[in-house]
Amino acid sequence: MSGRYDYERDGAAIYRASFAIIRAEADLARFSGAAERVVVRMIHACGMTDLSQDVDMSGGFAEAAAAALRRGAPILCDARMVANGITRARLPAGNEVVCTLDDPRVPALAEKIGNTRTAAAMELWRARLAGSLVVVGNAPTALFRLLEMLDEGAPLPAAIIGIPVGFVGAAESKAALAADGRVPHLVVQGRRGGSAMAAAAVNALASDSE
Amino acid sequence: MSGRYDYERDGAAIYRASFAIIRAEADLARFSGAAERVVVRMIHACGMTDLSQDVDMSGGFAEAAAAALRRGAPILCDARMVANGITRARLPAGNEVVCTLDDPRVPALAEKIGNTRTAAAMELWRARLAGSLVVVGNAPTALFRLLEMLDEGAPLPAAIIGIPVGFVGAAESKAALAADGRVPHLVVQGRRGGSAMAAAAVNALASDSE
Repeated sequence: MSGRYDYERDGAAIYRASFAIIRAEADLARFSGAAERVVVRMIHACGMTDLSQDVDMSGGFAEAAAAALRRGAPILCDARMVANGITRARLPAGNEVVCTLDDPRVPALAEKIGNTRTAAAMELWRARLAGSLVVVGNAPTALFRLLEMLDEGAPLPAAIIGIPVGFVGAAESKAALAADGRVPHLVVQGRRGGSAMAAAAVNALASDSE
Repeated sequence: MSGRYDYERDGAAIYRASFAIIRAEADLARFSGAAERVVVRMIHACGMTDLSQDVDMSGGFAEAAAAALRRGAPILCDARMVANGITRARLPAGNEVVCTLDDPRVPALAEKIGNTRTAAAMELWRARLAGSLVVVGNAPTALFRLLEMLDEGAPLPAAIIGIPVGFVGAAESKAALAADGRVPHLVVQGRRGGSAMAAAAVNALASDSE
């Protein structure tokens, strides 16, 4: 109970203090309402207040994504860590959280299409894509493959969160999504991103409650 | 298969190119051998080559942690996302990956000790602590509570990865771990950290193979 360390032990107080520090330090002038809450929670997930400068959200993204969730849209995730980071209790309609990466058909599919397993796993999303919330938090190949699937006539998601992280294709895939324009998008320009940030964005969109 | 985007579709080639970029750009002069591979993989997980400057690893940490894994040490994780990010196929001894956060005893325990659920969940680690690899990738309270438990006489882990992320207690808890000195440690000084980085460190320690 006690000990030689003096630290905040109340979870709700930690959240409140964290969000207050973020709002005091980060430049959030470009964002308001649900969009602002999304950026605050993404910063909370990564510890970097300068992240806001790299966030690129299409007009109406936050409203479109939040409305899709309220309608019961499935949440299609490229990585288990993304799916795992989504707080089920915040979801407004018991939304299904889907990650098809472990489907036994994926390895053969990856071989067949000559792409990564993550990209191949998205082929198994087709039946659920229409009106869904897509969340890519790990693999640039998944984001590129999604854009190709849309080119080939796949049904349109309601919104796409595209924040893969890394050094090969991440910045390029996010720029491609931002330039595409068919679906409301949220990206983090450059190399930064990842599953925690992506899940945080979903958690912000799922509920107005902080 | 084809499409309007030109991108690397081979998973192994993406890894190789990523690690080559990291080694070309990051200042890794302070690290060698297993320690260097740990830092490279942590950078890979977050997309930031300047992370190396904030990494604080005690001498012999990487060797102690890797040896513990080879001996079959359990991996005790504060968050499901950390546990989820550990690649089971890389583990040298089928090591158990443990996260006690969902244990039904946790809410009452949190109430009793007046701390967060994550900190309370660690009370359930006691029987497995001796010689384990502890991985805190999310909650500063978990790291503070662990140090308190060691003060109270809990068995010593073989090594501690302490990289919680955030604005309230994260930097302070990591500084406390680094100053403690009882157990070989890996921390990221400051606010940065998180489950992806923590899992990446474990994945690097688990196998020499990149």
